[in-house]
Amino acid sequence: MFPDSFASALESWIGLLGADFVVSDAASLRAAETATFATTQRIPAILRPANREQVQECLRIANRFHAPLYPVSSGKNWGYGSRVPPADDCALLDLGRLNQILDFDEDLAYVTVEPGVTQRQLHRFLQERQSSLWMDATGSSPDCSLIGNAMERGFGHTPYGDHYSHVCGLEVVLPDGSVIQTGAARFPGSLTGAVSRWGAGPSLDGVFSQSSLGIVTRMTIWLMPKPDVFEAFFFRSTSPDGLPALIDSLRRLRLKDVLRSSMHIVNDYKVLGGLRQYPWAETNGQTPLTPDLMAKFRKELTFGYWNVSGGLYGTKMQVADAKRLLRHELSSQPGKLQFLSEDKLRLAVRYAAPFKLFTGLDIRRTAKLVEPVMGLMRGEPMAPDFALSSAYWRKRNPPPPDPDPDRDRCGLLWYAPTSPAEGQKLERLAKLTVETMLKSGFEPMISLTMLTPRIVYSVLAITYDRDVPGDDQRAMECYNRLLESCQREGYYPYRSGIQSQNYSGGLDEYSNLLTRLKQALDPNGILAPGRYQSLLLQGCSRQP
Amino acid sequence: MFPDSFASALESWIGLLGADFVVSDAASLRAAETATFATTQRIPAILRPANREQVQECLRIANRFHAPLYPVSSGKNWGYGSRVPPADDCALLDLGRLNQILDFDEDLAYVTVEPGVTQRQLHRFLQERQSSLWMDATGSSPDCSLIGNAMERGFGHTPYGDHYSHVCGLEVVLPDGSVIQTGAARFPGSLTGAVSRWGAGPSLDGVFSQSSLGIVTRMTIWLMPKPDVFEAFFFRSTSPDGLPALIDSLRRLRLKDVLRSSMHIVNDYKVLGGLRQYPWAETNGQTPLTPDLMAKFRKELTFGYWNVSGGLYGTKMQVADAKRLLRHELSSQPGKLQFLSEDKLRLAVRYAAPFKLFTGLDIRRTAKLVEPVMGLMRGEPMAPDFALSSAYWRKRNPPPPDPDPDRDRCGLLWYAPTSPAEGQKLERLAKLTVETMLKSGFEPMISLTMLTPRIVYSVLAITYDRDVPGDDQRAMECYNRLLESCQREGYYPYRSGIQSQNYSGGLDEYSNLLTRLKQALDPNGILAPGRYQSLLLQGCSRQP
Repeated sequence: MFPDSFASALESWIGLLGADFVVSDAASLRAAETATFATTQRIPAILRPANREQVQECLRIANRFHAPLYPVSSGKNWGYGSRVPPADDCALLDLGRLNQILDFDEDLAYVTVEPGVTQRQLHRFLQERQSSLWMDATGSSPDCSLIGNAMERGFGHTPYGDHYSHVCGLEVVLPDGSVIQTGAARFPGSLTGAVSRWGAGPSLDGVFSQSSLGIVTRMTIWLMPKPDVFEAFFFRSTSPDGLPALIDSLRRLRLKDVLRSSMHIVNDYKVLGGLRQYPWAETNGQTPLTPDLMAKFRKELTFGYWNVSGGLYGTKMQVADAKRLLRHELSSQPGKLQFLSEDKLRLAVRYAAPFKLFTGLDIRRTAKLVEPVMGLMRGEPMAPDFALSSAYWRKRNPPPPDPDPDRDRCGLLWYAPTSPAEGQKLERLAKLTVETMLKSGFEPMISLTMLTPRIVYSVLAITYDRDVPGDDQRAMECYNRLLESCQREGYYPYRSGIQSQNYSGGLDEYSNLLTRLKQALDPNGILAPGRYQSLLLQGCSRQP
Repeated sequence: MFPDSFASALESWIGLLGADFVVSDAASLRAAETATFATTQRIPAILRPANREQVQECLRIANRFHAPLYPVSSGKNWGYGSRVPPADDCALLDLGRLNQILDFDEDLAYVTVEPGVTQRQLHRFLQERQSSLWMDATGSSPDCSLIGNAMERGFGHTPYGDHYSHVCGLEVVLPDGSVIQTGAARFPGSLTGAVSRWGAGPSLDGVFSQSSLGIVTRMTIWLMPKPDVFEAFFFRSTSPDGLPALIDSLRRLRLKDVLRSSMHIVNDYKVLGGLRQYPWAETNGQTPLTPDLMAKFRKELTFGYWNVSGGLYGTKMQVADAKRLLRHELSSQPGKLQFLSEDKLRLAVRYAAPFKLFTGLDIRRTAKLVEPVMGLMRGEPMAPDFALSSAYWRKRNPPPPDPDPDRDRCGLLWYAPTSPAEGQKLERLAKLTVETMLKSGFEPMISLTMLTPRIVYSVLAITYDRDVPGDDQRAMECYNRLLESCQREGYYPYRSGIQSQNYSGGLDEYSNLLTRLKQALDPNGILAPGRYQSLLLQGCSRQP
């Protein structure tokens, strides 16, 4: 891009949006250029359109001057690149002002939103209307965009946890500024725009998910009716070899539709990271946390090598039956199964001491983790301080009341490989992870989500302190090693960070096809260049 | 297309496939040009490749000589155009010889197939292996292709009834002859190709469904574990105004996940068409069937104005609870609810007379319909004579043992509008249909499928006898009126016949986008030209 042509584009954008909504002060730009790992990309301006028409016009200007744009909804893509574009010199197109809830239907159980609508906003909206519907929330900040998360194919904890599978009727601004509606919403006066997933003719929703081929400015999200009964279950596996049998049991119950939600299974390191910061005192400042000390914490804080949490939803009889079958499936496995209703949780917190006596569960300590997790199972977004606390794991100071991992120089890199829901396959993935990460000097924090009966999404968190000299580089090296060893054995990600989205060597036919689509829809390459245009394969990455 | 260039293409295809697998005798071509309604398109040859490599090479030859191809899997797209291409002079690419079952996993519950694999073939495969998995079948011929049906977004009766939502990992030959794998199958050595629906980066499966942008040569289908308990329910509504309350009740139970499958609701005309041919004697040869006579049949054959059938699947307790809740929901509605287990059906057939005494259900008569419908609920394809009998409704002779609606000049036109799963909306659609069809001289045969908790797919069948002079034209006029009146009120189809796929006037942005994609992937326009390239909007059609 020539500086002159960028200056002309900027002038046109200011003319369109007004100077107040084109941000270019050094501090704001610097903040936007900061992720939770080292990046070098520069952002020359932040555009804040008020509506879809302005989004379209921003794109037309971008085409006129060949000035690339990178759209973000809420920009809270922590661990994957935050607001930083994969390519240099993209102006940020901040969609936060498009924040209207446009439609809502209690009977058909859906809501239609713009990209600036956050988890918190929808949750409040449903509460204010005393709706009997539940949303699904991710475990990230309540201020995350619903559209941003669904289009990145994020997930939560209820039966509607696979977000991308529960949305339809996208409004998409194409790179040339034209607008389409997907699914049945494309037809004038259609009655099924908010309920039809595929429409008629080629279904194009997927083209705009994890892509640089359009900007989603409207989306319908399906909501779940509050079940008659909700209860949580927790299982802590007390054997280091407990994972394979656990996965196979849960898969069987998922396939039978006895368990219906996206269950989460986390290892000991991941639980500890949710409960507290790094034990600097106990370790005399040494990292990573040793297995011995990990054993001590497991015992002290009453959690297992592997810790399952899941919701049971349904009629009274359905939930009772699910409990019976869960007990039966897990009875032969070393560990402890607990069921927790909301009433029981309240009582347990009140009578913590006798509760521990009967159950062995130290509710005072674990309630800190259990309460927000049970909230997530009901689709309630977490409070920001809790949701983001684990990003501060290796920091020396506690998380502030208004956490911001980018600003506070939290180090966080996520690699998110997928595996078939088979015990042995996940055991191998876990072993690979633990080995690679400990060797690199980071705690292997593993979270596994059985998103469907057949697939597990894992999120491997490399958590560090960007203020420790050299850690940015060590963490990226760890990430590369992790990616390389996982992909060599067939564990490819469901989602990718900006450092792994644009790989230009040895393209496969699929990447060639994406390039042809990109050229057809965005011949000037002005929309999010490099974003998911290809995906990093084995052993290749751009170093920060 | 120039005849010379077609001759050259034909020569090359013969060189590639051998003369035995390039069919061009007049009788075969004439048969392939015959649908269940009037068409004028000519087919110059039928190519029968043996494998994916030959499919690729067929496309390369097609590009070289600008000779268009129209792929069919089993070609049994009756009611929507059979094997006839939407455009003239396309050679038929018959994928029937690609008929291997390539992969099967009992634990992860999936099977991977080629386009020639039929419902019957998969059903037998599962039986031979004594698998505990059930497939989902459509109510059409057992010789229908699984890939063909899923890519047209067809449906069946079990919890996996929405076929397109239960497939992944497509292998697609692009118009230029290159090959891609979709989802996680695109990654070399990926472990999740058969279980990951979205992969990473843009998800392109939808691009190849109801489209002319690629040929699917492999697909993974998810299978359902046999439930502990299966039982069917039937409800006949004895009020002509019973539909709205019925739909709303079923939606509530579907949203609660008490009912989990694609329930079917059919009107009286549709039931009669499943039980017998047109009553030529009783009507003295007059058409359409009058409401009075319809009332007589309803009474005599014990069915309602609206007739629901659905399966209950789950553990013993889940099914018991579903029965309780169904009884509760439907108790206030005029009609009769019956539950039928397989044991009970067997007994009832044996003791038909006392059964009728206790229940009012004449099992001998309705068993003809009930048994195959219960089979479908267990994923068992119907016998061809039963599956296709309703296409012979207006014929003067009974269906032959080897029915073939194209050959036997059965008239069948399907219009398949969708509606939100709301009682009033479906009542309006039904009224529109009954009015339009009776006025046009055809029986309004209506089938409604609640495919998801939020949407109903209806299939409106215009069934006639192509041997009656003028009926081809009258039926197409009826189709056009139906399409026009439905779309004017917002009821757009989920799928479309060849006569409605290529509309060239007044294009919307979505159609423009499809055209851009088509140009990018198929610049010579050699793959299935006109197929779903646009969709017929209000009041426009190509007359046959």
